[in-house]
Amino acid sequence: MAGQARSGCPINAAVEAFGDQWSLLVLRDVMFGDRRSFRVLQSQSEEGIASNILSDRLKRLVAGGLLTRDGAGPGRRATYSLTEAAIQLVPVFAQLGAWGLRHRPTTRELRIRAELLEAGGPMMWSDLMDELRERHLGVPRPRTGRESAGERLERAHADAVAASAG
Amino acid sequence: MAGQARSGCPINAAVEAFGDQWSLLVLRDVMFGDRRSFRVLQSQSEEGIASNILSDRLKRLVAGGLLTRDGAGPGRRATYSLTEAAIQLVPVFAQLGAWGLRHRPTTRELRIRAELLEAGGPMMWSDLMDELRERHLGVPRPRTGRESAGERLERAHADAVAASAG
Repeated sequence: MAGQARSGCPINAAVEAFGDQWSLLVLRDVMFGDRRSFRVLQSQSEEGIASNILSDRLKRLVAGGLLTRDGAGPGRRATYSLTEAAIQLVPVFAQLGAWGLRHRPTTRELRIRAELLEAGGPMMWSDLMDELRERHLGVPRPRTGRESAGERLERAHADAVAASAG
Repeated sequence: MAGQARSGCPINAAVEAFGDQWSLLVLRDVMFGDRRSFRVLQSQSEEGIASNILSDRLKRLVAGGLLTRDGAGPGRRATYSLTEAAIQLVPVFAQLGAWGLRHRPTTRELRIRAELLEAGGPMMWSDLMDELRERHLGVPRPRTGRESAGERLERAHADAVAASAG
């Protein structure tokens, strides 16, 4: 992630910055699951990320300018926040999810957010990025008159989890 | 790539299918560079892919249903073709490239195609997917009256290479 890029191709540059599989999954969980601490990222990981891998990827994502780490101190745990560069990955995640929906087996509870994001299209992605800027960067979001994209995703996910449990 | 997925999340599923860095770069070169044989993929690689890595990733991409391998025989080299699933990665590559353009250093010759793809938006991506279906799957493309997306990308890239050489 740090150091000289292998080429000047923007796709390669993107892949070198966040393209290893665990890095992408950590960013996904911070972004869509609002998991902001090491403990929560590890204990709630759907993929069962190992603690040494999580620790390494968090360090790399901070070094690469995709996460910031704040607030650790005596008796306080560090909190991770998305940077503007990471927030701009929302369309990449939306397209990755749309592809996964169509071409790989997936489970209902984990599928619903990707379905909504795909259906919502660029306007929903833009709303979600504004909401993430508010939550992670402290930039107040514009009033759109539309329902919060993040809340729609969260509610749909919670409903799907409840339905599969019931 | 084969075997049980780590979770039923569509983003994880996508990342497991093609998300290792070299696999993505090989798909990029088949898709945008029309590099169809092992020899061309290796000798023209901007990132200097090693032959053992290329060989492994081609096998994995074939096993994972993203490439097909045809035509090897006495005195003939194998040719690789994109599958429909791989062709549907065009929007993922477009978004990855758009992100890399904005957030990482890139070089002009390798940047121009990502710039055009971003500016062209979903209509250009759709045209390009139709052209790839014709070239890789033998499905005649619809007549749109628009200039070929692939030719526009190719010409812009050739012009940028000529300009930087001249």
